[in-house]
Amino acid sequence: MVQNLKAFVFDIDGVLTDNTSMLDANCQPMRAFNEKDSFAIRMARMNGYGLGVITGGSMMAVKQRLAVFGVPEEDIYMHTKDKPRAFDDFCTRHGYAPEEVAYLGDDIPDVALLRHCGWGVAPADAVQEAKDAADFVSDREGGKAFVRSVLESVMKAQGRWIFDVARYDAMF
Amino acid sequence: MVQNLKAFVFDIDGVLTDNTSMLDANCQPMRAFNEKDSFAIRMARMNGYGLGVITGGSMMAVKQRLAVFGVPEEDIYMHTKDKPRAFDDFCTRHGYAPEEVAYLGDDIPDVALLRHCGWGVAPADAVQEAKDAADFVSDREGGKAFVRSVLESVMKAQGRWIFDVARYDAMF
Amino acid sequence: MVQNLKAFVFDIDGVLTDNTSMLDANCQPMRAFNEKDSFAIRMARMNGYGLGVITGGSMMAVKQRLAVFGVPEEDIYMHTKDKPRAFDDFCTRHGYAPEEVAYLGDDIPDVALLRHCGWGVAPADAVQEAKDAADFVSDREGGKAFVRSVLESVMKAQGRWIFDVARYDAMF
Amino acid sequence: MVQNLKAFVFDIDGVLTDNTSMLDANCQPMRAFNEKDSFAIRMARMNGYGLGVITGGSMMAVKQRLAVFGVPEEDIYMHTKDKPRAFDDFCTRHGYAPEEVAYLGDDIPDVALLRHCGWGVAPADAVQEAKDAADFVSDREGGKAFVRSVLESVMKAQGRWIFDVARYDAMF
Repeated sequence: MVQNLKAFVFDIDGVLTDNTSMLDANCQPMRAFNEKDSFAIRMARMNGYGLGVITGGSMMAVKQRLAVFGVPEEDIYMHTKDKPRAFDDFCTRHGYAPEEVAYLGDDIPDVALLRHCGWGVAPADAVQEAKDAADFVSDREGGKAFVRSVLESVMKAQGRWIFDVARYDAMF
Repeated sequence: MVQNLKAFVFDIDGVLTDNTSMLDANCQPMRAFNEKDSFAIRMARMNGYGLGVITGGSMMAVKQRLAVFGVPEEDIYMHTKDKPRAFDDFCTRHGYAPEEVAYLGDDIPDVALLRHCGWGVAPADAVQEAKDAADFVSDREGGKAFVRSVLESVMKAQGRWIFDVARYDAMF
Repeated sequence: MVQNLKAFVFDIDGVLTDNTSMLDANCQPMRAFNEKDSFAIRMARMNGYGLGVITGGSMMAVKQRLAVFGVPEEDIYMHTKDKPRAFDDFCTRHGYAPEEVAYLGDDIPDVALLRHCGWGVAPADAVQEAKDAADFVSDREGGKAFVRSVLESVMKAQGRWIFDVARYDAMF
Repeated sequence: MVQNLKAFVFDIDGVLTDNTSMLDANCQPMRAFNEKDSFAIRMARMNGYGLGVITGGSMMAVKQRLAVFGVPEEDIYMHTKDKPRAFDDFCTRHGYAPEEVAYLGDDIPDVALLRHCGWGVAPADAVQEAKDAADFVSDREGGKAFVRSVLESVMKAQGRWIFDVARYDAMF
């Protein structure tokens, strides 16, 4: 499974975050990212992997932040309830077979997609239904470098966890 | 007790949060929510449960956020010191008997209501007086998916923890 | 010692907080309070104890927040390097003997005052020098209801941990 | 090694922070500092050590905050991908030999500099590659007073962990 992966798609809450979000004065929920995850996303970008986001929420700041890492706006699906449909759209647009794409999710709305995708991965603190649906359950919790550990292990297995400082400098 | 419950009422600080709040530049305390709790609140709404909030504080951002989940403004009691009175008002307006409504609280101002409501639940890190007054003490701490675990266990016991993606999409 | 205490004075960082502060866009460090501590401060106010703050930093939001709990502006000493001098000023203005006032602190700038005050208390994660200078080291860490546990234990020992909902409603 | 150190240079994310940053409404990542670290930085300044920052990110609030502690703007290298080059520039401008300067880092972009500097130190939660490159791995995690423990141990070893309240008052 892992050897065939060409792209990573992930949920935000509970995956890139520890599931908490802080309400600012305007009632906008602010998310906290882990910079080890951010580095892994840049490494995936730099080494030619596809990247997408599918979330039920609406998060403009997250969208802008991911754009800085090189995740194109059209690959960030927000306010999405039917996640498998968004996933298929992502695969079709980029020419991936579903089995070539991993999905990282942690809760009930992720269950169908964890089963549908090429390699479903859940963090250690996912709900039981998500763990049952996943192909692999990490020992990392959401927001605690879970995304980093998944991306890094896949890229290392494929011999593509390559840090090239000149290229890194040029891209980011 | 649990089989008769028709509605959930909860405190904010120490219940939906881990009891911390961050002061912004205008001295407004910002609360951090757990999105697993948020999902459970939407599930309760979707499956026909009543929802209310009773807090001693005043939190406009929380009010707006809960409105997004479908909790009506008139069911959010803020700046409330006499919590049992607010609880009775909530029950009367909606036609619930007190024994049909659960209350989730963690500190001294919650003690009277934890005893008065139909099913009083305290998080693992509640003060001793609240634990003593509660019918049930969870193994989850406030803000760490405590509300999720309580709502989910009640709804599962009643066979009503039902995720319908089409309905979910239409409501939220 | 504890039986004679009439007032509580505390440091902010590492005492009311877990020692972290988040920089906002204007480079203002935002502090996170624990609402169990906040409740204890209101209980102390309600039951007639003196309250003061001595901090090396400058925190307008904290000042405003403490004012909401009834801590007078003139009892909040900010930007204070010589803490024992501020402490003596607090005692003189209110007519307390130093041995009637507790001080809660966690770091090197608190050492002299932890020795000088009536009852010096350090949180579990204080630096060793502060623990050595303190009369009592709590099993609670700063920001994790450390202030609550200290105030509550003193007030209970004096039989003055009294929650009167009518009075609470009138005062806050 | 430790006896010869005259300056400390550090990365921000995962070193002065726990690697998380919270996105505000304008998509600016906000960092949380530990005030025990802040105190150590002021102590280093007060006792004559050089201080520098080398980070891949761009953080105006961090820059302003460090300026308050007396770290000159020209010694804060932001948006830096080639960290050893920035380090050499820092050393040249101040007349330090590389072996007189410690570097604190936690991730892949820090590996080359952890090897190049006088004394490379990694926090307990650094990635394996950084730990392997470091001369010393602390038992403290980033953002949990890691910087404090490193600076304090070096300064104590050199007999220069000296707190002078009058001098402290004059400088900060």
